[in-house]
Amino acid sequence: MAEQLFTTKQRFELSELRTVGGATIRNVAIGYETYGALNAARDNAILVAHYFSGTSHAAGRYRPEDPLPGYWDAIIGPGKAVDTNRYFVISSDTLVNLNANDPDVISTGPASRDPATGKPYGLSFPAVAIADFVRAQKALVESLGVTRLRAVMGPSMGGLQTFEWAASYPEAVERIIPAISTPHFTGWLTAWLSIWTQPIRLDPNWRGGAFYDGAPPSAGLEAAMRAMTLHALQSAWADGAGGRALAAGANSADIAALPFAIEKTLEEAVRARSPFGDANHMLYLARANQTFIPGAGAGARSVAEGVARIKAPTLLIHAPDDLVFLPEWVETTEAALRSQGVAVETAKLSGPYGHYNGVMQIAQAADRIADFLARPI
Amino acid sequence: MAEQLFTTKQRFELSELRTVGGATIRNVAIGYETYGALNAARDNAILVAHYFSGTSHAAGRYRPEDPLPGYWDAIIGPGKAVDTNRYFVISSDTLVNLNANDPDVISTGPASRDPATGKPYGLSFPAVAIADFVRAQKALVESLGVTRLRAVMGPSMGGLQTFEWAASYPEAVERIIPAISTPHFTGWLTAWLSIWTQPIRLDPNWRGGAFYDGAPPSAGLEAAMRAMTLHALQSAWADGAGGRALAAGANSADIAALPFAIEKTLEEAVRARSPFGDANHMLYLARANQTFIPGAGAGARSVAEGVARIKAPTLLIHAPDDLVFLPEWVETTEAALRSQGVAVETAKLSGPYGHYNGVMQIAQAADRIADFLARPI
Repeated sequence: MAEQLFTTKQRFELSELRTVGGATIRNVAIGYETYGALNAARDNAILVAHYFSGTSHAAGRYRPEDPLPGYWDAIIGPGKAVDTNRYFVISSDTLVNLNANDPDVISTGPASRDPATGKPYGLSFPAVAIADFVRAQKALVESLGVTRLRAVMGPSMGGLQTFEWAASYPEAVERIIPAISTPHFTGWLTAWLSIWTQPIRLDPNWRGGAFYDGAPPSAGLEAAMRAMTLHALQSAWADGAGGRALAAGANSADIAALPFAIEKTLEEAVRARSPFGDANHMLYLARANQTFIPGAGAGARSVAEGVARIKAPTLLIHAPDDLVFLPEWVETTEAALRSQGVAVETAKLSGPYGHYNGVMQIAQAADRIADFLARPI
Repeated sequence: MAEQLFTTKQRFELSELRTVGGATIRNVAIGYETYGALNAARDNAILVAHYFSGTSHAAGRYRPEDPLPGYWDAIIGPGKAVDTNRYFVISSDTLVNLNANDPDVISTGPASRDPATGKPYGLSFPAVAIADFVRAQKALVESLGVTRLRAVMGPSMGGLQTFEWAASYPEAVERIIPAISTPHFTGWLTAWLSIWTQPIRLDPNWRGGAFYDGAPPSAGLEAAMRAMTLHALQSAWADGAGGRALAAGANSADIAALPFAIEKTLEEAVRARSPFGDANHMLYLARANQTFIPGAGAGARSVAEGVARIKAPTLLIHAPDDLVFLPEWVETTEAALRSQGVAVETAKLSGPYGHYNGVMQIAQAADRIADFLARPI
């Protein structure tokens, strides 16, 4: 039987963070987990960055009775592709993490108390960029004694963070493994992020973001998370999730109801997470993704300018059925990196989950990841 | 210069309509337009059915100064594929038409006054099926002296109506031209229709559908229409619609705002139509699509059972980039019809508009349509 991996959430604090937008945020904290140990040469550290609705719980369990391990447990652990007997894995929460109310998430954002007022920021929290997530991560990594990472890896928004690392801090990253992610997305994704989040603003409990002294906009947040979840899946998933059938006892003539089994499936999938979610955090996350420019942390002003700074060998993992980060955008990234001399290789994930294949089916790329990480550069 | 086509909205009334769900609706009215004239043999009539957000304004203009003609004007008119010098074209509004407040739309639905109370139905209006739209159309067509249609044609939800005609009334339809449409959709579309419409229920003005004595849920309806509109397009459209750029003067750091040009593009596209829209009608339309079974008007209980009844030669027009009615579902329909001996042919539409290629690019299929209609059966 394989060795079980256990982990605990740890807290990293920064007295202040200067954002790429020019704001200063005081008393910043982010959660993180580590798996494995830093070696004496301090050259075996790998950073894992999470996806839009994810957390730093990438691998292992907190307690033996936890029903599920971290999201990439299939590839992170003792003897696995990201072998924690060999590598020191750091996985960090982003700023404005969606799951702000999860006791296992630590993330400064609009739900945090503004030290200047003692009250939750709400929308007075400054807009943050993916590059700001990475600034906080860089300080975390350095606090652990690491100045150069063997790799940065992550799915989806985690992949955007790998591009930001490689473009802004080329000396600090040996290689990157962006999964189901590309900086070359177009206005199509900009518009979808807007569609995902529009229910939040419609919820009367949202109150322009100033809901922390009352009932939160749970209905709006859940609707937003349902839109996000469906978009991150694919049609092949729907057949196993209720198809066109009615839920037991439901009546399709009741227009006020949501009578279909697949609506219940979506509702339940979201409701398992939504009590931990913060609606303002979701709005900030959407904006951070919409405005993403790799290299913004080092002053890049366009995607092309940022991508041109990337030198790190890249293992680009993608899912051809992905409806969020489209395959043609990934191809643009592959071609751009190759044309500037970056050693790029690709791995494909298949399965019924669309974009989520990058989480659910990551084991398909295990050997490729292990090989890519082990190779000397 | 081509001859201009002018048209006016006409009104068809039914003292009562018995729905497939077993309800009776009194004082039903639907609008319709006709182009061309019925011949003495009464064998040149073609019925056109509209899409989800469309109306019976399929061709021509009401007034010379109208900026745009009807949605399929590219193929309907004097000398066009559906040649109104040759054919008598009838285009009808559905029940529960989305644009209930458009002065050029006539459509009984939840916004109509219940003759029993003198007040708008709201959600007391019975759930209706696509088959009920067709029951009303059949009565309309018969009222015009037509017992057998040369063809039924329409895009998207209009295509579903063609399948219903062919499955429930095989003796009354010589041939069908469903465009960007298939009865073989799965739970994937069921779920998307739920995602489109969820903002309506979140709008506090919706009030369980009883909003007719107050402010309507315009914000919820507009959000729903934005979701529908984006889903009916494709990524290629986004580059020309603002891409990732900010709107003039917009600030991406303002989290309360929608700062991107593409968000404005979507907002303006929807706002041109939304004042005519009724939020309850959209909910009823979504349910009618979710529950669609061809042949339901003649008692079919499953998609397979309904499709098996179709005998009419079929010209299946589809858009391979369609994200609403997926190409693999269209292929299933083609194979099912072919396997039961139906003469099926297909035509493909290309362009940057995804599902909407079936409206915007229909001229690409003009010759195929003309040929298919002219052929003796």
